Order: sequence, then structure tokens, then C-alpha cells
Amino acid sequence: MRAVFHIIGVGPGDPELVTLRAARILGTAAVFAAFAKRGRAGNARTIATPHLNPAGKELRFDYPYTTDMPVQDPRYSEAMSAFYDSCAIAIATHLDAGSDVVLLCEGDPFLYGSAMYLFDRLRNTHRVEVTPGITAMAGCWSRAGAPMVHGDDILTVLPATLPAEALADALRLGQAAVVMKLGRNLPKLRAVLDELGLTERAIYAERGTMPEEQILPLIQRDNSPAPYFALVLIPGRRGVR
Amino acid sequence: MRAVFHIIGVGPGDPELVTLRAARILGTAAVFAAFAKRGRAGNARTIATPHLNPAGKELRFDYPYTTDMPVQDPRYSEAMSAFYDSCAIAIATHLDAGSDVVLLCEGDPFLYGSAMYLFDRLRNTHRVEVTPGITAMAGCWSRAGAPMVHGDDILTVLPATLPAEALADALRLGQAAVVMKLGRNLPKLRAVLDELGLTERAIYAERGTMPEEQILPLIQRDNSPAPYFALVLIPGRRGVR
Ligand SMILES: C[S@@+](CC[C@H](N)C(=O)[O-])C[C@H]1O[C@@H](n2cnc3c(N)ncnc32)[C@H](O)[C@@H]1O
Ligand SMILES: C[S@@+](CC[C@H](N)C(=O)[O-])C[C@H]1O[C@@H](n2cnc3c(N)ncnc32)[C@H](O)[C@@H]1O
Repeated sequence: MRAVFHIIGVGPGDPELVTLRAARILGTAAVFAAFAKRGRAGNARTIATPHLNPAGKELRFDYPYTTDMPVQDPRYSEAMSAFYDSCAIAIATHLDAGSDVVLLCEGDPFLYGSAMYLFDRLRNTHRVEVTPGITAMAGCWSRAGAPMVHGDDILTVLPATLPAEALADALRLGQAAVVMKLGRNLPKLRAVLDELGLTERAIYAERGTMPEEQILPLIQRDNSPAPYFALVLIPGRRGVR
Repeated sequence: MRAVFHIIGVGPGDPELVTLRAARILGTAAVFAAFAKRGRAGNARTIATPHLNPAGKELRFDYPYTTDMPVQDPRYSEAMSAFYDSCAIAIATHLDAGSDVVLLCEGDPFLYGSAMYLFDRLRNTHRVEVTPGITAMAGCWSRAGAPMVHGDDILTVLPATLPAEALADALRLGQAAVVMKLGRNLPKLRAVLDELGLTERAIYAERGTMPEEQILPLIQRDNSPAPYFALVLIPGRRGVR
């Protein structure tokens, strides 16, 4: 039986929102790893803490220092690619020695998760199993009391990092939407929503399901940049029937 | 302390994919309810079975008989609306007597879930708490080994019940998509995907995370109608980098 690389979604923040399957695998993890910014605990790691095998060995995957390097810069993708290569090698070394490895991921791993880059690097050579997680958006719309899509509604999920015109094109239909990755993109998104007449329907959710959670109508939030762990929900128009 | 109406997502099928929070609430539920087709066990009920308080009282919410009544027929919405009213009254009766009530929902409750109609009816008069669930799409893309959205990708989630032109409009961008509610709409969807050149990227997933799970490239599936618990995944084009 070959060792397994487990990619585990740990949900949006509340440690009680991990699945029974995730809790079982975390509780017996001989080796576990998580991505984090240099010097930070890492969100997935924090969420998983109450469930982790205390005897497990921890690998830290610190993102390379790329702040203020534009994402379009070829040096950015080179740095990230080399970083993911080195993470994959570290994981493969443990797998080849017969030890399972658990990678902790915020929300669901396959929805804008860095874990996908390690999945792609290891899927052809090793046994990989993915455990889905509660997505940040589902955590936030549950806490917001915002039913999202009914009947024939369409839901669009998109990142606020897109240029304003691309955001407007995707949101123009006025159907249900979730905008992720707010941060300093919030003022840009807000201008687009204002133009499309969508601001009144929008809900701002920051650190949903965490103790510091803030959920409020977008119209009541000032226009300063948002933290990284924030998103905007636009419930479907039929959500009130 | 007023009694709580708990709306609980139980995930896509595998009972181990319920959250710790859901398992805790199910295990102590004094009264629980689930929607089901007449004479069927109901999928959410089946998923929840290993976790349910054996001493709990069960309410059955059997959908009215509306097969072959077109959804556009006013009699359909009248019948459904009267049905949801009667469910809400049954729940309120228990809440008003001081007993918490748990409503079991497949996947996540606020993503195309019937629970939203009871949420809307009870939110203003009673305490309602929503527990998010693993969505069917996340269960399926994890099992399929299909990373869905990277970087600036857009994800569109839509039901195959839409007319062919609306499906084509939503899928034309060629970005990541999930098409739910296949059933007898599969041949229509397939014609649209063929026309847009998307069939080769599409993955068919039936009863994902259940023992009877079938996941295969759409191109390998015959064109007969699909069961209700089936969806199509179209991973983002950057999913291979
Ligand atoms: C790289 S994406 C990862 C998404 C994650 N894999 C998921 O399934 O939700 C990070 C974005 O998720 C959103 N996010 C994650 N956790 C959140 C939370 N607790 N509350 C609000 N937004 C959150 C934010 O928009 C953030 O910029
Ligand atoms: C009324 S919607 C409910 C969706 C659910 N609330 C969710 O969060 O995924 C029902 C549709 O979900 C999809 N579905 C539910 N469970 C599934 C499973 N185990 N495998 C594949 N598709 C499933 C099918 O497309 C089905 O037609």
C-alpha cells in the first residue's frame, strides 16, 4: 500500500466546520504541511490546530517574498513555480519513505487553492486523495442568512483581482455572484457594482465563521481596502420569493 | 432561550463528509425533518442516518405530486407554495412548544436547496441557524481529481433546466463551469457543449462520494438521460498548469 498525499479542505474558519473525514485524517497525520506567509501562522494551520495529531511532524511552506512584484512579471511566476517544485519534492520525500502527508487548505482545495499546484505536480507519480471542504462563500452566506440561488438562477464566482471591465462583464447579468479576493481591490469592485446598480443587494463578509467575523450590507461599509479574508455576496434576485 | 430552527447541510453523499457541527446537532436533534419524493427515503435523510439521535421524532415532508406539471404552470407554484407553508407551520408548532427542529439538506442548503423556502417563511418570526454543507460540486470535483479554478478564473454554476440558448450564453466564455440538475436535460446540455467545443473538457459525475458513484469523461458517456443526482464539471482552462 503506497503512502497517500492527502489534500484536506479545512473550511472557512470555524474549527467545527471541518468534516468528520478531515478530522479523522488530521488526528492521525504523521506529517502535515500548510502554506503561509512568512512569519504568519497561516489560516489553514490555525483552523486545523484543535484537530491535529500532536505527535505529527510539521512542514512549513512559506510563500516566497513576492509582494510588490506584479503578478504579470515573469519573475513572479518563476519564483512561484520554483517554490511549488520545492514543496512537491519535500512531500514526495516523505511519501517515498512510506509516510502519509497531509496538506491543510482553507475552504475547499480546488476552488482557488494553492494546493492545486502540488496536486498537479504529484498526481502522476503518487497516490493523492482530496477531501473537500466547506467553501468560504458557503460559510459566509450561511452566516449572512442569504439564500443564494433558487430554481433556474445562475451563480458566478469570480476574483476581485480581475480588471474592472472583466468584473463588469461577468456581473452585468445581475444574477447571483460571489466576489472573492477583495483586499485592495474593494474600491474597484465597488465602483463596478455602483455602475451596475448592484451595490444595494451586495453583502460584505470578512472572516466569516471566525470570532472576528464582520458581515454587513456593502452599502454600510466604508470604502477602505478590505483584508484578504473577505468577499462580497450578491444573492440571486429570486432569493426573496 | 428560544428554540432554534437548524437548517443543516449534510454534504453530497458520503456520511463522513458532514461537518463536526452538523454531526453534533444531528446527534441531539429532538425533532428532525427532510424533504423527499413520495415513497422515497430521501437523500439527505439517508446521508444523515448514521448521525441521527435515535430517540428523535421524525417529520416527513413529502413533495406534492407535481410530475408532468410544467414548472411554468401557475398550479405548480401554487401547489409548492401551499406545501412549503404547511411545512413551515409544522416546524413552527414544535419551535413554539420549545423544541429545536433540524431540517436535513443535501449539499449546502443555500445552493439550490428547498430549505431556502422554509428559511424565508420562518426567519422573521423564529431563531434560525444555518450550517453550511459540502456542496455536491466540491464532492464531485474532489473525487474527479479536477482542480477547478486558478488565479483569475471565473466559475459559473448553472442548472441544466435552463433553455439551450441560456446555457450557451452562460457557457460561451469557456471558463470553468458546473452544470447541475442533469436528469433528462443531459442531451440538451450535450448539444450545447458540442456546439461550443467544450465536450472534451467536460466530466460527468453521478452520485459523487456515494458507493454507486460514477465519474467519467462526458465524451465516454452515452446520451441517455442522467439520474437526478448528476452534474457536469468543466474545469478552468488553466487547470493544467
Ligand atoms: C485563495 S482564495 C481560497 C478560497 C478557498 N479555497 C475556498 O474554498 O473558499 C482566498 C479568498 O477566499 C475568501 N475567504 C477565505 N476565507 C474567508 C472567510 N473566512 N471569510 C471571508 N472570505 C474568505 C477571501 O475572498 C479570500 O481572498
Ligand atoms: C436541488 S440541487 C441541490 C444542490 C445541493 N444543495 C448542493 O449544495 O450541491 C440538486 C442537484 O445537485 C446535484 N447533486 C446533488 N448530489 C449529488 C451527487 N452526490 N453527485 C452528483 N450531483 C449531485 C445534482 O446536479 C442535482 O440535480
